[in-house]
Amino acid sequence: MMFEQLGLIGCGLMGGSFAMALKNAGLVKRVVGYSRSTASSTQALSLGVIDEQAETAEHAAAGSDLVLLAVPVASTESTLRAIQPQVTSDMLIMDVGSTKQDVIQAARRALGASFGAFVPVHPIAGKEVSGVDNADPLLYKGRPVILTPEAETGAAQVQQAKALWTALGCKVARMSAADHDAAFAAVSHLPHLLAFAYMNALVQQSQGDRYLSLAGTGFRDFSRIAASEPSMWRDILIANRDDVLQQSRLFRQALEALEICISAGDGDALKNLISDASRTRAQWTLS
Amino acid sequence: MMFEQLGLIGCGLMGGSFAMALKNAGLVKRVVGYSRSTASSTQALSLGVIDEQAETAEHAAAGSDLVLLAVPVASTESTLRAIQPQVTSDMLIMDVGSTKQDVIQAARRALGASFGAFVPVHPIAGKEVSGVDNADPLLYKGRPVILTPEAETGAAQVQQAKALWTALGCKVARMSAADHDAAFAAVSHLPHLLAFAYMNALVQQSQGDRYLSLAGTGFRDFSRIAASEPSMWRDILIANRDDVLQQSRLFRQALEALEICISAGDGDALKNLISDASRTRAQWTLS
Repeated sequence: MMFEQLGLIGCGLMGGSFAMALKNAGLVKRVVGYSRSTASSTQALSLGVIDEQAETAEHAAAGSDLVLLAVPVASTESTLRAIQPQVTSDMLIMDVGSTKQDVIQAARRALGASFGAFVPVHPIAGKEVSGVDNADPLLYKGRPVILTPEAETGAAQVQQAKALWTALGCKVARMSAADHDAAFAAVSHLPHLLAFAYMNALVQQSQGDRYLSLAGTGFRDFSRIAASEPSMWRDILIANRDDVLQQSRLFRQALEALEICISAGDGDALKNLISDASRTRAQWTLS
Repeated sequence: MMFEQLGLIGCGLMGGSFAMALKNAGLVKRVVGYSRSTASSTQALSLGVIDEQAETAEHAAAGSDLVLLAVPVASTESTLRAIQPQVTSDMLIMDVGSTKQDVIQAARRALGASFGAFVPVHPIAGKEVSGVDNADPLLYKGRPVILTPEAETGAAQVQQAKALWTALGCKVARMSAADHDAAFAAVSHLPHLLAFAYMNALVQQSQGDRYLSLAGTGFRDFSRIAASEPSMWRDILIANRDDVLQQSRLFRQALEALEICISAGDGDALKNLISDASRTRAQWTLS
């Protein structure tokens, strides 16, 4: 498997890391990159992450046998509309978005009859910093990558996508988009929402800054994801709002159960609830 | 500064690490250890963390010029009552509990006229694993240590405590107990409570185990503290219940503000709230 040209749309952390990984693996001859911010694609060019800067998303897609969309999920539809004139039925188009049902709807609307060329992909990888300066050819290595193809998705494209991510050292799995979105609302989107809420509650207090200066390693790890990129997380939380709000309801119920024990000073019941949480977390390992 | 004998009450992670650090620094000649569980003190003896096993807390305190209580905060009063017959006015007694107002109340009740020998201490250090097997002489090095002496606390004891923790490489600070408890409810106790609630909400779902298998590095760091020791956290959350519940209320308000934006699909307002959180967290560094 060797691609002639990767059309990279979005030369940030995710896109830049993908291009670097693909080049390092010898899987692509040439990368043409486009970013909405010219500064990003200029920087990607100077770092050798892309070989050529395109002036539009359509130019990046033109003549590419592989197109990667690494843009905020809310920009999926407009980006796919922009490249739609260049889409051919044997092209492989993928995204790297953290939500899948909304991306698939956007792709159906934007691509119409060419929808089969698009494989919805979610690599479970990232950093709380963004931009091509933080791109890393090893970002995806060893990480799970989830494909959520629809009935109309081209079988050849699904096969190619699977082979490509496997060649980058990823563990490729397949799920329905609805299943994917429910699962990631629970294990990713809700933790981000809680971390954002926690930071806001902390600094809105008059003593917030002083409290922050006393925080230790527990705080550091718990709140790390609160530093994530605001536009990206705005898009994800709104795109997957039903699942996110459902998870938040379940969380509030679990929090209330703990609070009731604390209020009542019911140490036995509180210890049981904490033990459940502690046991589950201690047994978990990163896949 | 050199102590003749450390009476170590509680030979677990915190107590064991303290004894090891004190020995490595050449600050103590001999360590006599007691644990409610004989297996713990036997293991501490076999690891060389203590030099002698005491059969009771009182025996560990007898003849010691330094006593460290490293027991769950809820056991402070009974432990101090047990050693009270051995307490002399020139002894230095310290605890390492994560809450201070309740510990001070317990110490007043248990020690009576000898209360001045007791310096309430909170070293901001720990691990999500417990037991003497995980003890580490470097656990406290470089970490902040907060002293919360009362008006009646012996000036000599405060001076000794400050010198001791400084000699172990710690950054010693002084606060009122009320201030301390409010601050740590915000930066430590609430994050633990939220992490416990989050894990419980996750696994109580029918698909919870499957969701867990898909979790990535964001989940890993956010939920790490949920694996903490249940008895210890039961005690802390109940001991500091007013501050903890107050912080939880503020958190719920901040969560609701985010949920309202998500429900309404109000991307601008949502991005503003996330940006506040992200900026604050990105600027924070561990002290």
